[in-house]
Amino acid sequence: MAKQDEFVKDIADIETDFPKWYTDVILKTELVDYGPVKGTMVIRPYGYAIWENIQNELNIRFKKTGHKNAYFPMFIPESYLKREAEHVEGFAPEVAVVTYAGGEELAEKLIVRPTSETIICEMYSKWIQSYRDLPVLINQWANVVRWEKTTRPFLRTSEFLWQEGHTVHATEKEAINETLLMLDVYKEFAENILAIPVLIGRKTEKEKFAGAVATYGMEAMMLDGKSLQAGTSHYLGQNFAKAFDIKFLDKDGVHKLGFSTSWGVSTRLIGALIMAHGDKRGLNIPPKVAPIQVIIIPIAGHKEGVLENAEKICKKLLSLNIRAEIDNSDNSTGWKFNQWEMKGVPLRVEFGPKDLENKQLVIVRRDTGEKSVLSLDNLKAINGILDDIQKNMLIKSKTLRDARIKNAKDICEFETLINAGNFVKSGWCGERACEDKIKEKTAASIRIIADENVNSGQCVFCKKATKHNVLFARAY
Amino acid sequence: MAKQDEFVKDIADIETDFPKWYTDVILKTELVDYGPVKGTMVIRPYGYAIWENIQNELNIRFKKTGHKNAYFPMFIPESYLKREAEHVEGFAPEVAVVTYAGGEELAEKLIVRPTSETIICEMYSKWIQSYRDLPVLINQWANVVRWEKTTRPFLRTSEFLWQEGHTVHATEKEAINETLLMLDVYKEFAENILAIPVLIGRKTEKEKFAGAVATYGMEAMMLDGKSLQAGTSHYLGQNFAKAFDIKFLDKDGVHKLGFSTSWGVSTRLIGALIMAHGDKRGLNIPPKVAPIQVIIIPIAGHKEGVLENAEKICKKLLSLNIRAEIDNSDNSTGWKFNQWEMKGVPLRVEFGPKDLENKQLVIVRRDTGEKSVLSLDNLKAINGILDDIQKNMLIKSKTLRDARIKNAKDICEFETLINAGNFVKSGWCGERACEDKIKEKTAASIRIIADENVNSGQCVFCKKATKHNVLFARAY
Repeated sequence: MAKQDEFVKDIADIETDFPKWYTDVILKTELVDYGPVKGTMVIRPYGYAIWENIQNELNIRFKKTGHKNAYFPMFIPESYLKREAEHVEGFAPEVAVVTYAGGEELAEKLIVRPTSETIICEMYSKWIQSYRDLPVLINQWANVVRWEKTTRPFLRTSEFLWQEGHTVHATEKEAINETLLMLDVYKEFAENILAIPVLIGRKTEKEKFAGAVATYGMEAMMLDGKSLQAGTSHYLGQNFAKAFDIKFLDKDGVHKLGFSTSWGVSTRLIGALIMAHGDKRGLNIPPKVAPIQVIIIPIAGHKEGVLENAEKICKKLLSLNIRAEIDNSDNSTGWKFNQWEMKGVPLRVEFGPKDLENKQLVIVRRDTGEKSVLSLDNLKAINGILDDIQKNMLIKSKTLRDARIKNAKDICEFETLINAGNFVKSGWCGERACEDKIKEKTAASIRIIADENVNSGQCVFCKKATKHNVLFARAY
Repeated sequence: MAKQDEFVKDIADIETDFPKWYTDVILKTELVDYGPVKGTMVIRPYGYAIWENIQNELNIRFKKTGHKNAYFPMFIPESYLKREAEHVEGFAPEVAVVTYAGGEELAEKLIVRPTSETIICEMYSKWIQSYRDLPVLINQWANVVRWEKTTRPFLRTSEFLWQEGHTVHATEKEAINETLLMLDVYKEFAENILAIPVLIGRKTEKEKFAGAVATYGMEAMMLDGKSLQAGTSHYLGQNFAKAFDIKFLDKDGVHKLGFSTSWGVSTRLIGALIMAHGDKRGLNIPPKVAPIQVIIIPIAGHKEGVLENAEKICKKLLSLNIRAEIDNSDNSTGWKFNQWEMKGVPLRVEFGPKDLENKQLVIVRRDTGEKSVLSLDNLKAINGILDDIQKNMLIKSKTLRDARIKNAKDICEFETLINAGNFVKSGWCGERACEDKIKEKTAASIRIIADENVNSGQCVFCKKATKHNVLFARAY
């Protein structure tokens, strides 16, 4: 691009048109672009770097909890999908199908994996013979395909990237513990790394994964008050073990079926952090996943010593394991300020002749806009500042969210609260019919079951006795 | 598995049946398994950990040379493939095709990427406007699909994992420099990280990538004397820029076509290191990519203090950034020795009551079998020993290879040398007809052009004047 004096952000107003703000921001900051095939996305380097940081942080946690990565084929024989009745019902309508390959029509059609339970369980049934082979704790990083009618980059695309953990255990108890352990891992990760507070809990029968005994989800509130399902962990019971004959010889000499789990998060998380932290000026990326944590902008870079010392600062920051970059393009300073602000870099460093003279630098926080001066001798303080930004972003999100979780006693109050962009907590009779009617009337669905066993209160819709207290929201 | 006193390796003899040795070893060491669909593989955790180490090492090198990672969609509209004439001719016979998705037949068929030049160039044509946008230096880690008739895990599978770099430059010179730079990056990586010496050079017209102006390859000698193409770097000229209209406004105000390159290595590298370093006892993995670098085997682990101190040693090694693991299973010591030897762990540590008493440990190198004693105070020496193993493996491979590169003056000598498992260097007239006839007669192909311009000597086959000196071998 030619030198530009004034940077025009040209993004829609976040208050009045949140969906357009989202699309404008992700395209203008070069996180993503539309792929040529409808519903697909190209994850550009700035967006992919966030994904790599997410991968690194999750890999640390998966490894610490005993999991290993592996890779399974993407093509699943059509017959596999059919072995678990609920599973095929849930996924068949949205699969992409390979019908010929190598110039010939295939004898059996191949499904491009929408998720890998079937093919992985087929392999597990071969690998698992004895209780000594258990538990099997494997994770896979992969692309998956689900042909969706309505798509939006990161949030819902025909192809997306994710990780899917698949484990097998000797007992129900162990498998349930694993399901809940990974849900906790996701929650800790979402809060401490993405700075997004999440609510976790079991999903209703309507909302659960096709083939699961129980699905647990984590839900995050976006700035528009809608909920985004940011990760799920499924207890699969013996459903897939039965369908794929995963049997082991137990200590007591008896052949038994295993109990399995699966759990996943996807590139959707990038959408979540954009919609949880952004503002009218653009992105606001938490330091722990920011591709660039500190952007250094030389002021009057042509003056003697400025650029040279700015580069020294950059090197020093890199040596402190801070992802720093210097912008020495010939765009105007104002242009640079605006651009890097829009790109959501957590901390901006300004360094000019006056700073060189005073052995200092000026720092500006993206989260608060706060400007301060730091001594050149004290560069390592920046690590602490980044930590503070990270913490502050979580606190801010949590405060905002907590103020928007409301209770409703009747459907009228319920609808008003939902329309105003709140999560609504209320009693529910446990009937699918009520759940469907509420959705129809208000477009809100049950995101999680907040309290499993409740003995008081009335269903917000039908007024029958409450079975569970649940959390309703409109959802992405 | 139940406790086993004697570990039976049950792998074919490497001298008499190298192909079966390969298959036995990769399955028994749990690197890989066959997938349910013909020609596919499952990369098991022990194999995938090698791939992760390869990825980490390459990412460091790609980043250092200015490249960034991104992700492009896997489905390519059929029409894209057809835009570059040679490209479609080369890849059309082996693609897998999605014909319906989401329950409907697609208006345009989708090709599952066999390589991504077409879809990436389509995006580049949108992103590149000005000389200021160049160079574009992007790499992608992805799965690709090529429907092959004859397959073998890691070496040739329907689906495999790889990285593909795709760059665009303003000038021919820059693009050629990039092509050669990445070839050098691959060579340095192969030699220093995989401990595999490689020969690099241009491929003949027959062997070049479909759509390239010139392909450069690196070739590695396997233990059976056959060559394995371990990586390629393509100079694509303006072929794809023309087909996808990648134009930029240059400094002189003129719109010009860009020059592009692409380069890739794949999970084939795992096959390469198995067949370059293995022996009759199994795998022999270079320390830099070994999933486990040091395996600690407690001797008489039930004796007081042994297991406890073995665990301390393990922790200490981990803190020294050594990938160490302890085998405290109840298998016999002999079984453990054999198993970890077969799995190719570079260094074995034995630690028993006598060692506890003498504050020492016994170490056994996988590469030489050499056994020695190390003081417990001197654990950090293990880093140096691993470095020495790494270097020794490269030297050994290089010595072995160099002794098997021979010159041939006529086709009779040529055939004898090829049959005996050598690489053969000889003069070649430059004619495709000769290249084809030699292949037909001897099953050897030209792996690389060793000397581009030669003014003396005769073609090994037709006796016409030599145009290039080339390297022949039978190849995987």
